[in-house]
This record gives sequence, C-alpha cells and structure tokens, in this order.
Amino acid sequence: MTATIHTLPRKAEPSLAPMMALVAEGMNSVNAVILDRMQSRIPLIPTLAGHLIAGGGKRMRPMLTLASASLLGYGGSRHYKLAAAVEFIHTATLLHDDVVDGSDMRRGKKTANIVYGNPATVLVGDFLFSRSFELMVEDGSLKVLRILSNASAVISEGEVDQLVAQRQIETTEEMYLDIIAAKTAALFSAACRIAAVVAERDEADELALDSYGRNLGIAFQLADDAIDYDSEVAEMGKDQGDDFREGKMTLPVILAYARSDAEERKFWQEAIAGDRSSDEDLAHAIELIRRHDAVNATRERARMYAQRAIDAIAGFPASAAKVAMTEAALFAVARRF
Amino acid sequence: MTATIHTLPRKAEPSLAPMMALVAEGMNSVNAVILDRMQSRIPLIPTLAGHLIAGGGKRMRPMLTLASASLLGYGGSRHYKLAAAVEFIHTATLLHDDVVDGSDMRRGKKTANIVYGNPATVLVGDFLFSRSFELMVEDGSLKVLRILSNASAVISEGEVDQLVAQRQIETTEEMYLDIIAAKTAALFSAACRIAAVVAERDEADELALDSYGRNLGIAFQLADDAIDYDSEVAEMGKDQGDDFREGKMTLPVILAYARSDAEERKFWQEAIAGDRSSDEDLAHAIELIRRHDAVNATRERARMYAQRAIDAIAGFPASAAKVAMTEAALFAVARRF
Repeated sequence: MTATIHTLPRKAEPSLAPMMALVAEGMNSVNAVILDRMQSRIPLIPTLAGHLIAGGGKRMRPMLTLASASLLGYGGSRHYKLAAAVEFIHTATLLHDDVVDGSDMRRGKKTANIVYGNPATVLVGDFLFSRSFELMVEDGSLKVLRILSNASAVISEGEVDQLVAQRQIETTEEMYLDIIAAKTAALFSAACRIAAVVAERDEADELALDSYGRNLGIAFQLADDAIDYDSEVAEMGKDQGDDFREGKMTLPVILAYARSDAEERKFWQEAIAGDRSSDEDLAHAIELIRRHDAVNATRERARMYAQRAIDAIAGFPASAAKVAMTEAALFAVARRF
Repeated sequence: MTATIHTLPRKAEPSLAPMMALVAEGMNSVNAVILDRMQSRIPLIPTLAGHLIAGGGKRMRPMLTLASASLLGYGGSRHYKLAAAVEFIHTATLLHDDVVDGSDMRRGKKTANIVYGNPATVLVGDFLFSRSFELMVEDGSLKVLRILSNASAVISEGEVDQLVAQRQIETTEEMYLDIIAAKTAALFSAACRIAAVVAERDEADELALDSYGRNLGIAFQLADDAIDYDSEVAEMGKDQGDDFREGKMTLPVILAYARSDAEERKFWQEAIAGDRSSDEDLAHAIELIRRHDAVNATRERARMYAQRAIDAIAGFPASAAKVAMTEAALFAVARRF
C-alpha cells in the first residue's frame, strides 16, 4: 500500500508581472516621451538625467497612471505625457535626495552626484522639474496641474520634515507616517488620481484612485524601510544600512526602540546620533530589530495599508487592471528588493 | 562788476525711484502674498525662505510685472499673485545657486546654505518652486503657466550651461550671451510678458514686453558682471571677486582676455583655472581689466541692450509707467551696486 502524499499547491508570490504586462505597450509611449523630453541644447542635461533614468527603476508611478487609466477604460493617449511628467517629478526628487543625503549608490550604480557632482545634479533636477510642468501645460488640464503642483509642494515639505527628524530619536510613529505620506504617498496618489481627471470621471472615482495611490505609497515606503533592516535580506548579501548610517528614524527603528530595554536604548540613541555607524553596529541594529520582530511589525502595518488600497478600488468592475493593481499592492508589501 | 557763473544743472543719475513709487502700493499686496504663501506646517521652511526673502533684494522681477501691468492700464488684481510666483521662482533659483556655487555671502548676509546647510536649502528651493506653480494654477491662465514653466526650464538650462563653461578660458562673448539670456533674461522677460496676458492684450503687446524684459535682463546681468571688476567699486571697499574666485567667464574677463598680451593671457589662464585666487590676484585682475577698459566696454554693451529695452516699449502711450520703465533700464546700466 502506498501513501498518497498531498502537497498543497504553493501559492505564487505576489508579483508586479500582471501590472507590467497590462501597461507594457503604454509604457513604450511613456518612455518615448521621457527620452524625447529630457533632451536639451546642453548635452550634460540628457547625459546626467539619462544616468538615473536609464538606470532601471521600476517606473512604479507612471505604471500606476497607466493602470488607473486602464481601470477606468480610458482609451485616449493624454496619459502618456502626464505619466512622463510624473516620472520627471520623481526623478528630480531622487536627484535632489541623493544630494541631500550625500548618497553614493542607487539601484546598484554610482549616483549622479558622485559621477557629475552636486552642482550639476541640483540643476538637472530643477530642469526636469520645470520640464514636467511644461508637459502638464501642453496637456492643458488645470485640474491635473493643481493635483501635481500640490503634490510637488507636499513632497518637498515631507523631505524637509524628514531632514528635521533625522537623528532625532524621539520621532514617533505618527510623525514618521506624516513624513512618508508627504514624501512618498503624495506622488503615488497624484499619479493615480490624474487618470480619473483625464478619463473625465467624477469626484468619487478621483477620490477612490487617490486613496488607492496614497495607501499603496505608504505600504511601499514601509516595505522599503523594512527591507533596509531585514535579517533575511542581510543574509542575501544585499546592500543595506543607508537609513541606519544617515540616522533616519524609520518605522523598524521606531518600533525596536519602543520595545527596547535600557541598554538597547542607549545603543539606538548613540547610533541615531551618528556615533555608531560601523558594519558591526549595523549588524547589531539588524539583530536588535530581529529580536523585537520590528521588520515583521512594519510589514504588518504595510499589509494594512495595502489592503486599504485594494479596498479603495473594490467598487470598480472586475478587469485585468483591477487584478494587476491588487497584485501590485500585495507585491509592495511582500517584496524583498 | 560781478561775473555770473552759469553752471549746467547736474543731470540726475538714473534711478529706480520712479518705478518704486509707481508700484509701491501694489508691492504691498505682492509682499503679503509672498509672506502668506511661504508658510508651511514645517517651520524650517518659512524660516529658511524668510532668511533670503526678508534679506532685502530689489524685487526687480515682481516690480517689472506690476510696472508692465501699469503700462497697459490694467486695473485688476491677478498680477499680485503672479508677481509673487515670479519672485518665488527667482528665490528658488538663488537658493540653489548658492548651493551650486558654494557661496557664503549674499546681500551682505550669510547665505542660507551656510546658516541652514545645503540639504535644507535645496529642499526649500524645491518647495518655493512648487509653491510658485500652485499660485499660477490658482490664477488659472494656461498661457501664464506656459510662459513661466518654459522660463523655468530655460533658466536651469542656462545654469547648467554656465556650470559647464566655468573655468573654461575659451568661452566666447556669444556663449556668454547665451548663458545670461537663459539664466537671467528669461525670467525678466516672462515677468513682463505675463502682464500682457493678464491684461488680455494682443500678441504684439506681449512681444513688446517680452523684448523689454529680455533686453533689460541682459543689461542688468552685464552691469552686475561689470561691477564685480569695477576699479571704482573696488575703491569704495565693497565686496568683489566672487566671479573671479569661482572662475566664471563673464564679459569683463572675456574682453580683457581678448585684448591681452601673452603674459597677461597666462595670468588669466591660471586664474580661471583656479590657480590664482588670492586677494592680490583679484587686485591684479581688476587692474588688467581697467587697463583694457573692459568694464566700460561691458557697460557699453549693457547700454545697447538697455536702449533696445527702451525702444521695445516706445510704441506705448506716454505714462508714469513708461517713464519708470525707461529710467529703470538706464539705472540697470549706471548702478554701481
């Protein structure tokens, strides 16, 4: 007699693949706009911008504009230019971020500020920012301009807020959520919302997509912050520790600190103040965060926001876009990169 | 018998006073918008922005918007918000400029980057830039948005161009004029042109004001660059030499270099390369520029552009605004500060 061994089918990891398939053709149009409109009579501008743009980010934000348009059944082409405008705002922000943080690596490559210097990096960020507004003006929707100019102002407020909170051990979870709502989620929500404007849908659809984007953005940033202290990721030998060395109070640290005993608190106080930044200190930080389960706790919060994002679009009819956007929210939390 | 001594009445120096009187009341409204809209939930933002904004620049650009509106007999109030938007773009540019140049003094005060650091200065520049677009969106004219977003892109191109030309002794007068047309004159012309849009005047009036602003901007920048090497200004003990120490190829240097003998050329090559930056070197540079009359030659060019600005508005009927704008163009060239 032979025993039949029943194995449960292994549930596939959530993935960005459905969204990438959904928007693949549209992204070709977006990428064409990006390449065309980063040109300038000054050759250094496309060279420097291309260094980051060609560096292969996920292009999450323009994908979200396209997926949101697809969810609404929009059949036009206005959203290509606007998705490129969103990516230009994001790129400008990354260039300035790398100057602000003094970063040397991004997406496995030397950062633009290292290769081309801070001055050129600041100025090319300004150029891309201006160019994004030119693209919006060409589209001609004041509503889109309002949404994205407001998002831009909120992003810079969030960045300043984060700068002020840097190396401040007393940063609370609420303060941290305010920061990431501004610096990350504002552009995610704007990227989704403008699709409803372009598709000429009502306020309710605008707000639904705004909510999807904002909650996805928060989930995405929480997961990002978790990855930087994830002991499993550490075992994979991936680069970690940027947040640690910069003294950023992200949620894994806030939670681990809150759950610490006196000796551990002393370590965190010294580390966030900048007095402990060696590789051994980073390894100790990752160990403390593992001990207090702070990466999982951060991912738990992220899961809640991802679920909120999924619920925000629950009212839309079933479609490939809805599946893709749901998967993207689950992926945002589950990813390890 | 007594001799009657006839003295010619001394011609008054051209001054900004007529323009300041013309726009004084309007500038109160503009300043109120500026103060109101630089606020943020993040206290560092108005603190840092206020450091520069309260530092007492001439506010040339918003004054030009108001004077241009007055020239056209515009009686509304839309231009206050837009003039504030123009000043925000200018302020954002100055903040980023000071980071890019590593400047330590502006308008007799320590620069924001010295007091608050480069990171916060970059980010608050971004905030003001976003805020300026929010103000334009509130006004609601796509034409104004197009003019100012284009001007912003051109400004950053000019700034990158200048950065690339820095320490390049082979920069020509034509290359230099391209740089200042972009980095300075584009915002002057936009500041004037938007008044015609707000006043709903035709294309010809838009172009006339655009030309006035652009030529005034070039004259203004040429005079600025002359002042930095003016031996008379040097005798007044004013701060000079920023352009020299930064290796900027401005017109006084370009002209002095072109008129130099072999020994003088060697000095300039070394100085622009950054190998001669002492106070003695600066004094020698000022002496060489005096010897070749390069400050006067620069001012002569500036006079031509100022005259072109004056001619651009010749077709408008006589008014206090026309007198003020004419005087302002003469002042731009004659000033020693």
